[in-house]
Amino acid sequence: MSEKDCIFCKIAAGAIPSARVYETDDVFAFLDIGPVSDGHTLVVPKKHYAHLEDCPPELLAAIGPVLGKVAKAVVTAMAADGYNILCNRGKAAGQVVEHVHFHVIPRKSGDGVFHRWPAYEYKPGRIEELLKKIREKL
Amino acid sequence: MSEKDCIFCKIAAGAIPSARVYETDDVFAFLDIGPVSDGHTLVVPKKHYAHLEDCPPELLAAIGPVLGKVAKAVVTAMAADGYNILCNRGKAAGQVVEHVHFHVIPRKSGDGVFHRWPAYEYKPGRIEELLKKIREKL
Repeated sequence: MSEKDCIFCKIAAGAIPSARVYETDDVFAFLDIGPVSDGHTLVVPKKHYAHLEDCPPELLAAIGPVLGKVAKAVVTAMAADGYNILCNRGKAAGQVVEHVHFHVIPRKSGDGVFHRWPAYEYKPGRIEELLKKIREKL
Repeated sequence: MSEKDCIFCKIAAGAIPSARVYETDDVFAFLDIGPVSDGHTLVVPKKHYAHLEDCPPELLAAIGPVLGKVAKAVVTAMAADGYNILCNRGKAAGQVVEHVHFHVIPRKSGDGVFHRWPAYEYKPGRIEELLKKIREKL
């Protein structure tokens, strides 16, 4: 998806209306209109980057504090028991709009919104193999 | 959980070994030993804060760029198709260790790791109500 056709760029520019919760120079937050729980908010850089790893470090540094501020307001306002912060990168991971965004999803105990956590154990030696692979890419 | 008993504080201090992927002065990253996919990495502040909204803005600003750097290395090293970045806050949201942490979870197309996204639509007027509530807490 090009920047020209990007719905989040249009929302950032005000060409498409949104329920804007908060904004700074570089980042804004608005209510997701297809929420998975009431108060589900998106935190989005104003400038277009498809993926998190494309963002310059300064932008990621600007997003971090907005996540904390917005999450605190959302969890308090919704009288929630907790929240998930979630950034899906790529279709394989559930990303629909190809403009980086973080979901802030208020949660109540036992709401069943997300309940799957399919953890397993590594076989002996596997963790060292993976560590080496990842370190080589840093 | 107090800081004294916190497993991530012990890992940060080196009292419990870990497969450490990367670190800065304030943040470190290591392989989750109970992964949901190979290369599943945790990004964790070295200092103890139970929840994201407890972290000072400077710390959240330090975490952001580490997420980008680690995610890029993990997705490349694992030849993954994408990833999820996930911070669970509170038991209701799936937080197990009460020391802030972000999961970086490599994903392959069709892996079925997370596949539930139970979105719905707001009734008319509801989004304005929620916006007002959240803005009041900022």
